[in-house]
Amino acid sequence: MTFSLEALNQRVAERASVSPEESYTAKLLHDGIDRCARKFGEEAVETIVAAVARDRSGVALEAADVLYHLLVLLKASGVTLDEVMAELDRRTGQSGLAEKASRQPS
Amino acid sequence: MTFSLEALNQRVAERASVSPEESYTAKLLHDGIDRCARKFGEEAVETIVAAVARDRSGVALEAADVLYHLLVLLKASGVTLDEVMAELDRRTGQSGLAEKASRQPS
Amino acid sequence: MTFSLEALNQRVAERASVSPEESYTAKLLHDGIDRCARKFGEEAVETIVAAVARDRSGVALEAADVLYHLLVLLKASGVTLDEVMAELDRRTGQSGLAEKASRQPS
Amino acid sequence: MTFSLEALNQRVAERASVSPEESYTAKLLHDGIDRCARKFGEEAVETIVAAVARDRSGVALEAADVLYHLLVLLKASGVTLDEVMAELDRRTGQSGLAEKASRQPS
Repeated sequence: MTFSLEALNQRVAERASVSPEESYTAKLLHDGIDRCARKFGEEAVETIVAAVARDRSGVALEAADVLYHLLVLLKASGVTLDEVMAELDRRTGQSGLAEKASRQPS
Repeated sequence: MTFSLEALNQRVAERASVSPEESYTAKLLHDGIDRCARKFGEEAVETIVAAVARDRSGVALEAADVLYHLLVLLKASGVTLDEVMAELDRRTGQSGLAEKASRQPS
Repeated sequence: MTFSLEALNQRVAERASVSPEESYTAKLLHDGIDRCARKFGEEAVETIVAAVARDRSGVALEAADVLYHLLVLLKASGVTLDEVMAELDRRTGQSGLAEKASRQPS
Repeated sequence: MTFSLEALNQRVAERASVSPEESYTAKLLHDGIDRCARKFGEEAVETIVAAVARDRSGVALEAADVLYHLLVLLKASGVTLDEVMAELDRRTGQSGLAEKASRQPS
């Protein structure tokens, strides 16, 4: 596979500088964080519905939407994908279960 | 950056074969698609709240949770990350805005 | 106040029998549970965004949408509002905190 | 049926004045809007999963949770149930489909 989340993120960054009339990405970013959060939320809901409905191809399509809209939301929020990946890298040094437990409120 | 979504996905696949007592990932997968969908949904909600609250570091942490739980949900659903990436690759051949429009119901 | 959730529910029941071309409610129900669940989820996301953005009037509007789409989802699912209210009545006999604890997995 | 959303809302108002140690409602309100929004979102996700899974009794239980947590979120946001009901009353003067269309961006 040649395509990656990093390549998609690069694409989001490129389109961010285009005018909102020409690019859906630029339009979302122009509309601001709250709008990007709503769109991300919609796609998350659609992924959940597809998964629980056991709609395999729906899950693949909606997961693609989730990844794209998550990257747009990160961009809108001023968070880099590198920061997110560094956090994931940090966590994989522990077992997920131990890590999850360590974040629970006491 | 050395860590990637593919590396995280490999990690999910490895942990899927461990016993549910030893691994949070294995426990989620053992509990089934609906449980994985609920957890993914919770993390999506937390990402939205962090983003709208303009909590940058919260967004980074929650986005990491979203990516991890999305990969677990894909695994539970029998969808490969390659399928999702192929869909994203296909879409980047079109402008996002045109693509979005093409998926709208008439 | 004369308007109530029961009155809104009566309204949903009336409109359920109209043709999908004439009524948004009938159209949602005709489209089925999954579509009703997606719409409910969208409105829940919009309520969350409005609340975290401290948009008081947005919260009032989105909460109205949530109540309406929840009633449509109940109708689609064959669950009566009476069943939901009976459950709430049952719970108020206990403190919410005790009740919540009693539902947690051990 | 004797129990109503207004009665539940009265209950939420009563418990809001208790100490957070004694009441789950008071604890949520003490934790603030963002925490209330997260809990509401979790319950919305659980309702969606139950509905798509065709789990009728799950839908009834989760819908009860949604109504309760929505009232808590309204309270946290300083929005009265009367305001929400007035909005719903206003809308029922129009067909839902016409009303929905009237809110769409042009």
